[in-house]
Amino acid sequence: MTYLNENYQNLGPSWPFPYPTNPMPTNWPYMSTPWSQEDDSSYRAKEQPLTFVLVHGSWADASFWAGVAAELSKKGHTVFVPEFPGHGADPNKNVTHGMISKSVADFIISHKLHNVVLVGHSFGGSVIQKVAELVPDRLKRLVFLNAFVLKDGEMLADELPPQVVEQFKQLAASSKNNTITLPFDFFREAFTNLASLSQAQQIYKKAFPEPVGPLFEKLDLKKFYSLPIPKSYVHLMEDNVIPFGDPNYGWHPHMSSRLGLFRFIQLHGDHMTTAHYEPKLVASKLYEAARD
Amino acid sequence: MTYLNENYQNLGPSWPFPYPTNPMPTNWPYMSTPWSQEDDSSYRAKEQPLTFVLVHGSWADASFWAGVAAELSKKGHTVFVPEFPGHGADPNKNVTHGMISKSVADFIISHKLHNVVLVGHSFGGSVIQKVAELVPDRLKRLVFLNAFVLKDGEMLADELPPQVVEQFKQLAASSKNNTITLPFDFFREAFTNLASLSQAQQIYKKAFPEPVGPLFEKLDLKKFYSLPIPKSYVHLMEDNVIPFGDPNYGWHPHMSSRLGLFRFIQLHGDHMTTAHYEPKLVASKLYEAARD
Amino acid sequence: MTYLNENYQNLGPSWPFPYPTNPMPTNWPYMSTPWSQEDDSSYRAKEQPLTFVLVHGSWADASFWAGVAAELSKKGHTVFVPEFPGHGADPNKNVTHGMISKSVADFIISHKLHNVVLVGHSFGGSVIQKVAELVPDRLKRLVFLNAFVLKDGEMLADELPPQVVEQFKQLAASSKNNTITLPFDFFREAFTNLASLSQAQQIYKKAFPEPVGPLFEKLDLKKFYSLPIPKSYVHLMEDNVIPFGDPNYGWHPHMSSRLGLFRFIQLHGDHMTTAHYEPKLVASKLYEAARD
Repeated sequence: MTYLNENYQNLGPSWPFPYPTNPMPTNWPYMSTPWSQEDDSSYRAKEQPLTFVLVHGSWADASFWAGVAAELSKKGHTVFVPEFPGHGADPNKNVTHGMISKSVADFIISHKLHNVVLVGHSFGGSVIQKVAELVPDRLKRLVFLNAFVLKDGEMLADELPPQVVEQFKQLAASSKNNTITLPFDFFREAFTNLASLSQAQQIYKKAFPEPVGPLFEKLDLKKFYSLPIPKSYVHLMEDNVIPFGDPNYGWHPHMSSRLGLFRFIQLHGDHMTTAHYEPKLVASKLYEAARD
Repeated sequence: MTYLNENYQNLGPSWPFPYPTNPMPTNWPYMSTPWSQEDDSSYRAKEQPLTFVLVHGSWADASFWAGVAAELSKKGHTVFVPEFPGHGADPNKNVTHGMISKSVADFIISHKLHNVVLVGHSFGGSVIQKVAELVPDRLKRLVFLNAFVLKDGEMLADELPPQVVEQFKQLAASSKNNTITLPFDFFREAFTNLASLSQAQQIYKKAFPEPVGPLFEKLDLKKFYSLPIPKSYVHLMEDNVIPFGDPNYGWHPHMSSRLGLFRFIQLHGDHMTTAHYEPKLVASKLYEAARD
Repeated sequence: MTYLNENYQNLGPSWPFPYPTNPMPTNWPYMSTPWSQEDDSSYRAKEQPLTFVLVHGSWADASFWAGVAAELSKKGHTVFVPEFPGHGADPNKNVTHGMISKSVADFIISHKLHNVVLVGHSFGGSVIQKVAELVPDRLKRLVFLNAFVLKDGEMLADELPPQVVEQFKQLAASSKNNTITLPFDFFREAFTNLASLSQAQQIYKKAFPEPVGPLFEKLDLKKFYSLPIPKSYVHLMEDNVIPFGDPNYGWHPHMSSRLGLFRFIQLHGDHMTTAHYEPKLVASKLYEAARD
């Protein structure tokens, strides 16, 4: 996989397995290219071919999806992985939630994508909620993978316990550019609890300082809650990011249930390790969530 | 497996695997026959032989249990699958909860069954509660598989959120015979969320219009809550039928905990797909729930 | 594995697999010896070598950990299994919670252990809370395996529903020495729900009468809640000991969440069967909970 970027040129393969580079230039900040599709028709025949757009979360960039995208691609699906403004190699951390969701919607339009399975992880859940409002006719289904489902008028910080919000504010205040850098000890226990230490370190390397602004923007989601787009929630059961114990917080069932009727898929896994180190499993569950 | 039926004659094997037909006539509406037992004593020796009576739920008939019954039979158990009045091939949809539970109790008596492991799925949970009151001395254990456990004086509809009840009422009102036909799109997401589309379609074919009456009958269950019969609850973890998010609804722990002391067994699965397409797994869990 | 005991001499191997006996005498009531370490350096190289101290729960003795300790030992870890006063072969059932936690702390000191991963199961959770207060500098991490995490000022009985507490009081009152002997029918359903009958019987043989005193002692845990020792909670998902259905009771998330930031690990299993009959699985999860 390569991320193409007009400003920074080809950043080179950031993952150890070889992928044919796609020379098609893409406009900043949409650095993704479709995943190559292996010529293995018998293998591909097993799954209904779908078009996935995978939207990463906070403290992550498009590389979060590298393994999962590769596995989906092997199965014959077309996969796109847009990267947010303010994330990955983007030096400008002064971004808004609106900039991010617009960038994904623009990506879908500029790539002429239709019948898209739009997947959001973590913060990406709130992004796909807004993208659904912007390009509803392009979407086949929304899939939330331990992702925020905000109520109309909420900000993301409303879904975190007050002590976490306070910590985030302090971390942002102590930064030079209004970003949050998670301490490794916290990240290792809460985001990568199932990982080995070296796996956690590998994932942490990609946990760039997160722009704090979008976490504190109230979102108008009235339209989202009127859209008839089918929805799925894929639940990683050992996710430790939102503290357990208060039923007023949490991925599932607290936020998932806001979707109304949704297809429920569940697997063992934590917030970040499983997508990185069990990509085949996660890809198979995203497919189960996405198929007709 | 064949379902014998005096009214409709032999309906023929409704499942693709061959089973020796059992010519023994049974009285309507008890269309089941014991499952054949393979002569494989070494295999059978592994499990304590038990007598199972499997009680299906709404939008289902005896064929719901076909695969599970076959697997239990292979293990040396004796398995009966009575079909409810108002279900399967029965043209009369004007049935009561009392007719249904009496039919199962009569089945147990007429077949001279003792030491029965009585299993209920979904709506069948409320049935086995009443059957336990009718023939307590015939029962070894009650096993609830994502099944309703009603409180004394409740109706089944009390265990569904108000918006679901309202939908059911509208669907019944728009029917010609006071039945509920679930829309496929809803059924596919909520009853068969783990299925492929073709699997969901196969299961939906058996989802005949469900008589609405028994869902709205208050049940006297005082005797049930005084019976010392051992109980088990088998929980399919990805069951999406009762909306998540409100702790006042749901199979487990909301309804299961009403059983007081019970043996708890859990597996991954949804409301209908797993029994149909992973019958060996479900059979093994029912055995774990049922053995001494 | 052998448990050495000055008072009762060598009790002999209590488990069917051969272990080299360790002739090193240990002081009552600490009957454990380090687990032998197989000379299999390539196998051992896979895991970071750790020092485990495994603390059993009520209705159990050190043999509860035999299989798990053997599996950890095979992987190159050093494992100690102290047995409580009032448990196992100890005839004196008149013990206090303070005696028990002091015995474990003394064990750690007398064996000159440092950098200890201190694991508590069930009642053992409240023990490792107090041990952490006594010897915080000796501990690398606390691991709770379906274990009590008491609040400051609580007694263990506060974490059991009133009807259970009442039953325990009656059982203790009907004993000759203020102990609780669990009826087998209850034990089989609630402590060993996933076991076969013979497995449940084997485990029950070790369920000696439990001294009731420590269940009703309020514990000062102010210091515990100020200690910066890392913590993990390992959750056996089918544990049926604390009745389901009331969110004010239960291992996880009710008690686990009191740990604040903790590493969360989860597996399928019940309160007692899994450690005995799937020791390799439990050992691997304890390692995941304990590693850096």
